Amino acid sequence: MSRMLAEILEQPDALTRTLARNVVGARRLRAVLAKRDIRMVVLAARGTSDNAATFGRYLIEITTGLPVSLAAPSVHTLYRANLRLEHALVVGISQSGAGPDINSVLADARRSGALTLGITNEPRSPMTRVVDECWLVHSGKELSVAATKTYTGQLLLLYLLAHALGAPIALDELSQIPDEARRALGLREHIAEMVERYRFMSHAIVVGRGLSYANALELALKLMETCYIVTERFSSADFLHGPIALVQADFPVFVFAPPGPTLKQQESLLKRLTSLHADTLAFASREIRGNRTIIVPIQATSDLYTPIPYVIPAQLFAASLALVKKINPDAPRQLAKVTQTV
Amino acid sequence: MSRMLAEILEQPDALTRTLARNVVGARRLRAVLAKRDIRMVVLAARGTSDNAATFGRYLIEITTGLPVSLAAPSVHTLYRANLRLEHALVVGISQSGAGPDINSVLADARRSGALTLGITNEPRSPMTRVVDECWLVHSGKELSVAATKTYTGQLLLLYLLAHALGAPIALDELSQIPDEARRALGLREHIAEMVERYRFMSHAIVVGRGLSYANALELALKLMETCYIVTERFSSADFLHGPIALVQADFPVFVFAPPGPTLKQQESLLKRLTSLHADTLAFASREIRGNRTIIVPIQATSDLYTPIPYVIPAQLFAASLALVKKINPDAPRQLAKVTQTV
Repeated sequence: MSRMLAEILEQPDALTRTLARNVVGARRLRAVLAKRDIRMVVLAARGTSDNAATFGRYLIEITTGLPVSLAAPSVHTLYRANLRLEHALVVGISQSGAGPDINSVLADARRSGALTLGITNEPRSPMTRVVDECWLVHSGKELSVAATKTYTGQLLLLYLLAHALGAPIALDELSQIPDEARRALGLREHIAEMVERYRFMSHAIVVGRGLSYANALELALKLMETCYIVTERFSSADFLHGPIALVQADFPVFVFAPPGPTLKQQESLLKRLTSLHADTLAFASREIRGNRTIIVPIQATSDLYTPIPYVIPAQLFAASLALVKKINPDAPRQLAKVTQTV
Repeated sequence: MSRMLAEILEQPDALTRTLARNVVGARRLRAVLAKRDIRMVVLAARGTSDNAATFGRYLIEITTGLPVSLAAPSVHTLYRANLRLEHALVVGISQSGAGPDINSVLADARRSGALTLGITNEPRSPMTRVVDECWLVHSGKELSVAATKTYTGQLLLLYLLAHALGAPIALDELSQIPDEARRALGLREHIAEMVERYRFMSHAIVVGRGLSYANALELALKLMETCYIVTERFSSADFLHGPIALVQADFPVFVFAPPGPTLKQQESLLKRLTSLHADTLAFASREIRGNRTIIVPIQATSDLYTPIPYVIPAQLFAASLALVKKINPDAPRQLAKVTQTV
């Protein structure tokens, strides 16, 4: 078994631990926030952590009304701009806590008077020393280069952050997420069989929207990193503004279509794609009627909490397909576990 | 000649007109801004206009220090969130001014107390009626579905916006941009010959960083829309955090490497790519030493003003390659000129 697959399977326990060990930190942050006039949130990250940040951007705007920006690190590291961040909460997200660019964004922000929070796996990393508050993902050491349990741990902590910012997210709702993750892992055998069909796929498009847009970015990244498939990723609205011109018969398109406010748009996109004879697969809770789409069926109790259970079958898909393609997903060519960019 | 190519050639005149007719509006906006306590900027757009917004995001942060967010329209249209935007300038960018999602972001923002600005080609579009201030791109009617003169017109107005927000950008610097655009068009014959080499290219990656990241997104979109090439797009830092695993011998990678603070990183990326035997092309002002990269040589007087002259050869590349591939770039399959998404 690849380490990637083993780490995917560890997620329910990692999520339980990560939640339990951060409840106190969340309470403390809530108290700190009560004394500050926070008017915006900035999220800074790279790679898989940046996909988690994209989730956080939707979650925080939707549940708290605070506007959120995803930081462009080069503004700080290369252009040396000083942003006016005195009413901002700036959050860095990094598995290793060692990326100089993200730590530079955090250090600059703190100097500008922002409140800073770090989210990392590494308790002794440089990130922990540049921030006001630090939350740890307790997923255990991640050994595969392809991040999985880190991503869902970061998502969980972003729910906790929204909670600390006053969102209507209760801790007992979050405590159900590990069980939903466990149920999603039940698809393991099913997915191991279905990937056979995709053995020779050389390119693909993944589409999500709103809270599940981040999962589309994450599946695309996994297919690139672990299966060497040229995979485009779009929000479904952006996809319709140009890139849909790529689609012809048998073009593979993967669509996240969880229950919730985005479902109607995703169903209508799937109808359009099947009328173009695209080869479509949807991560969805039920059949899409009148449609030739392959469904990966996922249970979820509430649309706000679909992202973690929905990404797990996507992780399984990439790990299983890598196996079929005889690629070692734990050590993709050209990559090391810690990438340092400025 | 395709309409797309004809419209690419119209850009110097369109830019001259667009600048001349918006100087008064810029002065008025500056006066309005002087009476407001603007602490952040939100940019909302789709498709090519969203690529222009990405440019605006870097430009405004770098030159004014105001934090910028790119709006996620579904937060407004599908999740019905009300963002706290009372100290924000919210800017909608749309060729047609008719996209319901962007206009909905603007209307919501105005109701929340934000100052709103519309940037559009269409003086009688719905956008003009939902915003406080409106600036028109005077590029003349754009008939090709693939937007070109609209994009550079939007970039020019974003420079004017940065100027109105107090950036050290002088109007006489902007007035030199049409001449730089004209010089870039001098590459037309050269590019028409060089695209022959790419006739059978089925996939590609385009990479940019900072102020030229938007041009990478725009070249990728043009290659998708007008040449049906599966084209990935990344910031060069994000590219190193995973997707570089895709690269093997002869993989085509296009890199924007203009002079300025990002050049060193782009040169080092090109060296790494050539060591992987990738097939690289760089839009650059000079040779990259010790490198087998094909160079499209572009003059530019100042790094802040490279984006408009640098995107023009990229537009010519896509239009010329479409011709070689016998695709009509004015009417890509699946697309209409105005895309309406919610």
